[in-house]
Amino acid sequence: MPYGYDGQILRVDLSRGAISVDAVDELFCRKYLGGAGFVSYFLLKELRQGIAPLGPENKLIFALGPVTGVPLPGSGRNCVGAKSPLTGGYAKSEVGGFWGAELKHAGYDAIIVEGKAEKPVYLWIHDGEASIRDASHLWGKNTKETEQIIRDELGDSLIRVAGIGPAGENLVRFACIMNGLKDAAGRGGTGAVMGSKNLKAIAVRGHKRPEVAEPECLKELRQWLLAHRELWASYAELGTAGGGGGMEASVKTGNIPVRNFLDGEFPEIGEISANAVRDTIRIKMESCYACPIRCKKVVKVDEPYPVDPAYGGPEYETLASLGSNCGISDLKAIAKGNELCNAYSLDTISTGDVIAFAMECFENGLLTTEDTGGIELRFGSAEAMLKIIDLITKCEGIGDLLAEGTARAAQKIGKGATEFAMQVKGYEIPMHEPRLKAALGLGYVVNPHGADHMDSIHDTMYSEPGQALDRVKPLGILEPLPADELGPRKVSLFRYVQQERIIRDCLVLCDFIPYDIEQVADILAAVTGWKTGTVEMLRVAERTLTMARLFNIREGLTAADDKLPNRFFQPKRNGVLSTKFYDPEQLEKAKSYYYTLMGWDAKTGVPTPEKLQELGIE
Amino acid sequence: MPYGYDGQILRVDLSRGAISVDAVDELFCRKYLGGAGFVSYFLLKELRQGIAPLGPENKLIFALGPVTGVPLPGSGRNCVGAKSPLTGGYAKSEVGGFWGAELKHAGYDAIIVEGKAEKPVYLWIHDGEASIRDASHLWGKNTKETEQIIRDELGDSLIRVAGIGPAGENLVRFACIMNGLKDAAGRGGTGAVMGSKNLKAIAVRGHKRPEVAEPECLKELRQWLLAHRELWASYAELGTAGGGGGMEASVKTGNIPVRNFLDGEFPEIGEISANAVRDTIRIKMESCYACPIRCKKVVKVDEPYPVDPAYGGPEYETLASLGSNCGISDLKAIAKGNELCNAYSLDTISTGDVIAFAMECFENGLLTTEDTGGIELRFGSAEAMLKIIDLITKCEGIGDLLAEGTARAAQKIGKGATEFAMQVKGYEIPMHEPRLKAALGLGYVVNPHGADHMDSIHDTMYSEPGQALDRVKPLGILEPLPADELGPRKVSLFRYVQQERIIRDCLVLCDFIPYDIEQVADILAAVTGWKTGTVEMLRVAERTLTMARLFNIREGLTAADDKLPNRFFQPKRNGVLSTKFYDPEQLEKAKSYYYTLMGWDAKTGVPTPEKLQELGIE
Repeated sequence: MPYGYDGQILRVDLSRGAISVDAVDELFCRKYLGGAGFVSYFLLKELRQGIAPLGPENKLIFALGPVTGVPLPGSGRNCVGAKSPLTGGYAKSEVGGFWGAELKHAGYDAIIVEGKAEKPVYLWIHDGEASIRDASHLWGKNTKETEQIIRDELGDSLIRVAGIGPAGENLVRFACIMNGLKDAAGRGGTGAVMGSKNLKAIAVRGHKRPEVAEPECLKELRQWLLAHRELWASYAELGTAGGGGGMEASVKTGNIPVRNFLDGEFPEIGEISANAVRDTIRIKMESCYACPIRCKKVVKVDEPYPVDPAYGGPEYETLASLGSNCGISDLKAIAKGNELCNAYSLDTISTGDVIAFAMECFENGLLTTEDTGGIELRFGSAEAMLKIIDLITKCEGIGDLLAEGTARAAQKIGKGATEFAMQVKGYEIPMHEPRLKAALGLGYVVNPHGADHMDSIHDTMYSEPGQALDRVKPLGILEPLPADELGPRKVSLFRYVQQERIIRDCLVLCDFIPYDIEQVADILAAVTGWKTGTVEMLRVAERTLTMARLFNIREGLTAADDKLPNRFFQPKRNGVLSTKFYDPEQLEKAKSYYYTLMGWDAKTGVPTPEKLQELGIE
Repeated sequence: MPYGYDGQILRVDLSRGAISVDAVDELFCRKYLGGAGFVSYFLLKELRQGIAPLGPENKLIFALGPVTGVPLPGSGRNCVGAKSPLTGGYAKSEVGGFWGAELKHAGYDAIIVEGKAEKPVYLWIHDGEASIRDASHLWGKNTKETEQIIRDELGDSLIRVAGIGPAGENLVRFACIMNGLKDAAGRGGTGAVMGSKNLKAIAVRGHKRPEVAEPECLKELRQWLLAHRELWASYAELGTAGGGGGMEASVKTGNIPVRNFLDGEFPEIGEISANAVRDTIRIKMESCYACPIRCKKVVKVDEPYPVDPAYGGPEYETLASLGSNCGISDLKAIAKGNELCNAYSLDTISTGDVIAFAMECFENGLLTTEDTGGIELRFGSAEAMLKIIDLITKCEGIGDLLAEGTARAAQKIGKGATEFAMQVKGYEIPMHEPRLKAALGLGYVVNPHGADHMDSIHDTMYSEPGQALDRVKPLGILEPLPADELGPRKVSLFRYVQQERIIRDCLVLCDFIPYDIEQVADILAAVTGWKTGTVEMLRVAERTLTMARLFNIREGLTAADDKLPNRFFQPKRNGVLSTKFYDPEQLEKAKSYYYTLMGWDAKTGVPTPEKLQELGIE
């Protein structure tokens, strides 16, 4: 095996209670790399067409990359994949913390979980050994209790746990998997898949430190990062909510959604911004494995809502989704909502979106207090937001409807509610505005997992000279492009950036570490010893995306599903984008050109047989 | 200006006798790089559609790259471009020696020669100054005499001269431009363009040594090369004819053409191979600027044909074109033919091919001694070959017909002679066999300048693990591909290799220096100080090829011109490939997929408007 891999994939059949190991060879590793590449490969290869996402035939894949667990910032992560209960297609989600590194140290490159346990179980993996253990006593417990009980009963306080809270158990379609208590594999509903398998948690502990081909080179890259604090100072200071000039700036540009993407103005932004968090409820910053940036907020609130610091603090997406997008300016309530989501294993983006959706339905009379059990579900009501989180988790009352996700809830409500459903392929829209960032909208529609902002582009970063543009110069992007333009040059830039992100999802490397793509290639070379480069990495990204596309096509998704909600084709009600709207024709042209660049049919988005041969996809 | 460029392009209007300088900025340099990139840009931008290649409206471009003249092996070169009198389309040709480096040291990145002088002139360029000088006394002189007279009259024996002999003056359509006496910008007939402008030579001398951004890095790359002698030992020992196991091996594989590509067997190969050259007529090896490899043979023959060592010795292409392809096994005659071609400024590949073509016509009665002025123009006749070289140069008798090149001569001869014309777009086929190397055949048809072997692929190098395959691993090509396969994976590999070669033509860097593409990117970064990489370079190659394609389309060339001679669709008469033929349908499919990968229409090969926008081509 090359450095960077254990060469072993753990396969756990919960129906049979059987554990086995698949060996993978170097060519396989180099062709698919890890993380998202492994997820795409196994989902496409092993899942039967049309299986129920929440049935025993779905598989839940935890995949590491060559970078996982090596002494380098951003290397503590893992990727999670499955058929998504939210989109019915490809789900993959990345998550930080320490669990990924621990699994690598325990001797595995990935875990494939199949079948369904008869009763609740958890997996215990340590130093090359794995066992299935009873979890009946853990069922119903939140993530903190679960972690504590497992550590206690296994007698090791350094055990890392990835698991679900009640939302995953109750099959909330946007339930996430929590690594520890602060880090979520948030998107696509993999937590529900875990719940459907009666798998409460995976506890790991390992002592094997991965060898790398060129440790000196990794050391230099680490030193480089330390020497360039200016590239990440805002993350260290404010977390993800400090990016792009902070949330106050995000209102000025129109990026942040307000009241279910209806409004642009949000004068209360200063009350919920990263600055506000720092100045009021934040007690410290914490890090993931091996990372000096320490971008993770920890908050503490005593009243009116006691917030347990163990659950960390709200990131940008959460501040916006439970905050401005619900019209809420009560920071403590948002922090409480964040804590609940982490304790219950709910994706904060989908949660915020589905609540904002329900609020708009309520404001427009599509839902009433009769539906809500008396809750005055209005924009701005922090109390309502917190109550709904509880109901969703328990699938009770209105929560049972909303636990299905925005798209399904809108269908059931009818009466035009679909116009309020801010989702693509059933996947709720994250906290960034396509009316401002044209190619981001393209990313929302063409990303195989749905409206994802991480594997996409933030056009405003490339609209003037600066750090972001400098980082894509090695890709031949030499001149700024307006944020709202969506011609072939922008589509090409989007595709590069998307593939760069996908590569990080394969390695698996944190998106916020400001290495440029050449440095990322250096990392891969230094870890594995391969003579590699950016072109090979982009090719792996192309393969990964194409396999994911094939998976979606097999599950019945088509180019017609690559569409934005109509709301984006209208201006906002107020604020800076109140005269601006997304041009649907421009989007169709851009989609078509993106398909073409990918070697997919320009109209249908179906990968051509030639492209599949070229990429070695059978 | 970035390091690596002078920022000045010399523009010489011979009709008006005017000299001016165009300034180029950093963005321009980065977008087009130099060499072939500059040639494509200026030909497309400045040439009017339909102009006569040998008329005053054609322009002759001598372009350097950022690498030219820096202290690095392979950096003495330049690219020459024009509208080709041979193909009627895009001509570009690279040439080694010292002239390119000298021009950079004299302060220019390129020369654009326009118009036509009233009487013969030459250019004298030294240390940022340029003048047009009378060359009446040089007209009719061979290249050695020309160089000597210029050096004498300008009083500097270190002056470097690029110029033409009588073949260029007489507008032989495949006349070349000689850098000194040994190095030819061989292909496409740029020597005839030079002659049509009454421009005998360009003499240069410069004392400015280019600064580079990271001299230490260049030093390391040079050291790396010196430390890896095994990668280039065969070139140092045997020149280009030592590649691929030598010419003896080339008969065994079927790569080398015999008797106008008819035959496979050539038992006399040992008499004309690189080993034979070394063991008989070779007196030493010489180098180009700054190169330790010293791959250039120097030969001396006293009788029966005195060969002047000043003209160097025959490379692989010449040994095969004047040798086996004419059925000739007389090494001294081949060396003499090589000397004549260099003295007269004739491309040895086209010259050998057109003679082989005429021999086949003669053998088949399409030409008779009446046409040849009594010459028994049979395969194997060294005497005939040498006589024809003289006649072509002088455009006398049969030579006047053959000076038009194979395609035009075949048209004039009629009677089915076109079936004997081994050419693509009027450009004679080099000494490598598509029936052995499938994607090489694709390269012959899609290369914008015609059947070029340098900007193509030699499939046999990638059919088993080894150095060549290792060098493309950073491109994600991990597994060998059979030499005769031409599916999408091979087409994609071809495209990468083609673009890697085009990048070298832009830089301008010798193809025989065994840097891999990541090292080439390191060189560009070290010279210029840019944060660049392979992706940016491939993008420049894509732009360069697409501009060349547009130029050809404007001149009336279409996908129908992207075709191989019918001979390749038949087996050889004997030898290892006597049962093997090229599949025309497979070629059409491969062409179509190549067009698709290039972002050109899959059927017509016309670049799409979106691709042009993406690449920033107006």
